[in-house]
Amino acid sequence: MSQETPIDPETLRRQHPADVADLLIRLPLGEAVAALRELPPELAGRVLVEIAPEAAADYMDAFEPGALAALMAGLPSDEATDLAALLEPIRRRDLLALLPEELALHVESLLAYPPDTAGGIMSEDFIMLRADRTAQECQADLRRRPRATLPDVSYLYVTDGARRLVGVVPLRDLVFARPDQRIGDIMSREVRTLPVDADREEIALQFERYRFLGLPVVDGQGRLQGIVKSSDALEIAQAEATEDMQLMVGLSGEERSFTPWQKALGRRLPWLYVNLATAFAAAGVVSLFEAQISRWAALAVFLPVIAGQGGNAGMQTLTIVVRDMALGEMSPRDGRRVLMKELVLAAIVGLAIGLTVGAIGYLWKGSIELGLVAGAAMLLNQLAAAFSGVAIPLGLRLLRLDPALASSILLTTVTDIAGFFFFLGLAVLAMRQLGM
Amino acid sequence: MSQETPIDPETLRRQHPADVADLLIRLPLGEAVAALRELPPELAGRVLVEIAPEAAADYMDAFEPGALAALMAGLPSDEATDLAALLEPIRRRDLLALLPEELALHVESLLAYPPDTAGGIMSEDFIMLRADRTAQECQADLRRRPRATLPDVSYLYVTDGARRLVGVVPLRDLVFARPDQRIGDIMSREVRTLPVDADREEIALQFERYRFLGLPVVDGQGRLQGIVKSSDALEIAQAEATEDMQLMVGLSGEERSFTPWQKALGRRLPWLYVNLATAFAAAGVVSLFEAQISRWAALAVFLPVIAGQGGNAGMQTLTIVVRDMALGEMSPRDGRRVLMKELVLAAIVGLAIGLTVGAIGYLWKGSIELGLVAGAAMLLNQLAAAFSGVAIPLGLRLLRLDPALASSILLTTVTDIAGFFFFLGLAVLAMRQLGM
Repeated sequence: MSQETPIDPETLRRQHPADVADLLIRLPLGEAVAALRELPPELAGRVLVEIAPEAAADYMDAFEPGALAALMAGLPSDEATDLAALLEPIRRRDLLALLPEELALHVESLLAYPPDTAGGIMSEDFIMLRADRTAQECQADLRRRPRATLPDVSYLYVTDGARRLVGVVPLRDLVFARPDQRIGDIMSREVRTLPVDADREEIALQFERYRFLGLPVVDGQGRLQGIVKSSDALEIAQAEATEDMQLMVGLSGEERSFTPWQKALGRRLPWLYVNLATAFAAAGVVSLFEAQISRWAALAVFLPVIAGQGGNAGMQTLTIVVRDMALGEMSPRDGRRVLMKELVLAAIVGLAIGLTVGAIGYLWKGSIELGLVAGAAMLLNQLAAAFSGVAIPLGLRLLRLDPALASSILLTTVTDIAGFFFFLGLAVLAMRQLGM
Repeated sequence: MSQETPIDPETLRRQHPADVADLLIRLPLGEAVAALRELPPELAGRVLVEIAPEAAADYMDAFEPGALAALMAGLPSDEATDLAALLEPIRRRDLLALLPEELALHVESLLAYPPDTAGGIMSEDFIMLRADRTAQECQADLRRRPRATLPDVSYLYVTDGARRLVGVVPLRDLVFARPDQRIGDIMSREVRTLPVDADREEIALQFERYRFLGLPVVDGQGRLQGIVKSSDALEIAQAEATEDMQLMVGLSGEERSFTPWQKALGRRLPWLYVNLATAFAAAGVVSLFEAQISRWAALAVFLPVIAGQGGNAGMQTLTIVVRDMALGEMSPRDGRRVLMKELVLAAIVGLAIGLTVGAIGYLWKGSIELGLVAGAAMLLNQLAAAFSGVAIPLGLRLLRLDPALASSILLTTVTDIAGFFFFLGLAVLAMRQLGM
């Protein structure tokens, strides 16, 4: 990037790792890696954590296992795990052998969980207390620990002898408790937890709904395994929203503005070919009516209007349904009710837009029949759009796929085919009437 | 909703306000309001806070000011402000006169800030310390306060005599400090702050980038005015993502699955009419070529393929740019670089898809000229799609509008008009060659 000011390593050192990451992603791969090498290893490791997974993997490939282990040695176990998960299995094994032993053990245990679950997201930086200790004893214990090992926690977790979670104490309550109060008396026994296999959507939902600063993650036996922090939840929620927006239009969910075109190409092209196939299916419908179009070319003028308007209205319905399902504000059992609402809406919109299109057809092309056909096709296609806007995401969920997956491509396939079919089919009837 | 089990007030009482809200939004307005009336006022107030603003406003309209004041009397000032902001000015004045005096004062001061800014979002539940006190003195002070007035804080803020923010102490550090340490010695002096007028996007960005549990909000003189919590940031981030997804397709940003159709209609229809106008502009291009289409009806078959494929590829570019701009991962000065990448990608995609379409044109319709025209138009329209996918959101930002606003409608207008024009224009040239 010749037009950018060269990046001075001294300046980088004084910045927040997230800001350094923001500068690096704008550089060509080679320059970014060179800049990373100039940084103190601990900072470089924290910068890597802030970079989107795909680019981070590219950067890491440029480092020898030893250098990589040095970068990662100072990271919390959950962040080290996120990075290790990006490596090929063989390189990962080499890296683990070079990491400090305790960190390597933590990383290895965390790698066992799928990365998109609570187990894969959780951190092991939490503090456990016993119910029979007093507030003062606990504070004294905590003060005795080396400062560096004290995680930035908001809640302290109370466990029994088998590490089963029995209560939670907000740090605030420990501070404000009388010194002789027992933890068992100040703790809250109603603890919301995340199962280790909770998925990203569920995690974001719990945090958004109940506004926690952190949530404990437990295994099937109720044993405390880790915590997920609200900052993780924010990151997850943003990633989920990005993914949904991208999946809808046939993107991978991982692409960013600065993703190199070589990578973007391989992912976009397959969906564009799927889209091309569906477009030709719709074109096949038009082709059935070529003889009519030759005789009445005005049909070709109205075709894209009917199909396009259905596509746009359908996208409105689809967007609301996909997003509300992701936010947990609509569940499949609400489907019938939402469908009814969307059909009512589509009927009214279809009548309004249909009348307008009909009037334009009559006034522009001087044919009342064209107006009637276009108006009626518009109304019918609005209904098809509303139906598929609700049915496509619900159907994808039923097939255990993401409700957003290629949903906009599917929707426009329906609205194109239905729109062409309604309009040209009705046109054939009108032409018979007219003796054309 | 006759098919739903009737809701028992006793059951509701034992649930989290967010869960009660989730049940209520599925009921008709009258039943939801009746259920709210059955709840203890304090719980009903907390339920109202959990309901999407638009529906909450409808519920609140059903209450007399006195009953509403009773619901809101127990709320934190920032939440009471959010609700008060939903009322008509006259009803709001009546309500404020009936609220407890201190709460009314807080609400009135918070109402001065626009609701989508840090000032409108912040809560006044924070704790201030002086730098010259010791850790022990501060803890003793805090313990003396009635428990109910102690907010659930993660950070304590250190201010000078003029309430200017001079440092921050994580609650954790206060707990783990030696009793005789002075606050001035344990506090961190590098405090990130939000200005009162920071917008939602900026707030979400700060939290996502730096992973805070809370951020102090300061006025122009650096005086502490409130705090924004990470749970607020999560809510804001979700609302921003929903709004962007909706704005792109011509929705208000406020619509939900359960928004009554009467409300949805008034908001969707204007954009659908805008879309209709743009569709007819594109249809006007087709109409210029009616004579050619009469002679060569296969043109009508390929028209929607060229335009639709451009629309889909353009939506991919647009989605990435809109989302990355919202996440702060792409700024307008990255525009040229992203545009170059998208154009390279479009050229390659256009060649691949163009060759395919050309081959289909030749094989299906038996005309090498049709294949050439369709393939070339496809390539050109892919370039137009990439250009407008980048230029539309950047242009909207330049006009100080939301980069998402109606962007998908604008984009398909470009890809329709450009697609029709390239394809039919080239077809005219081919027909001249062929002597048609």
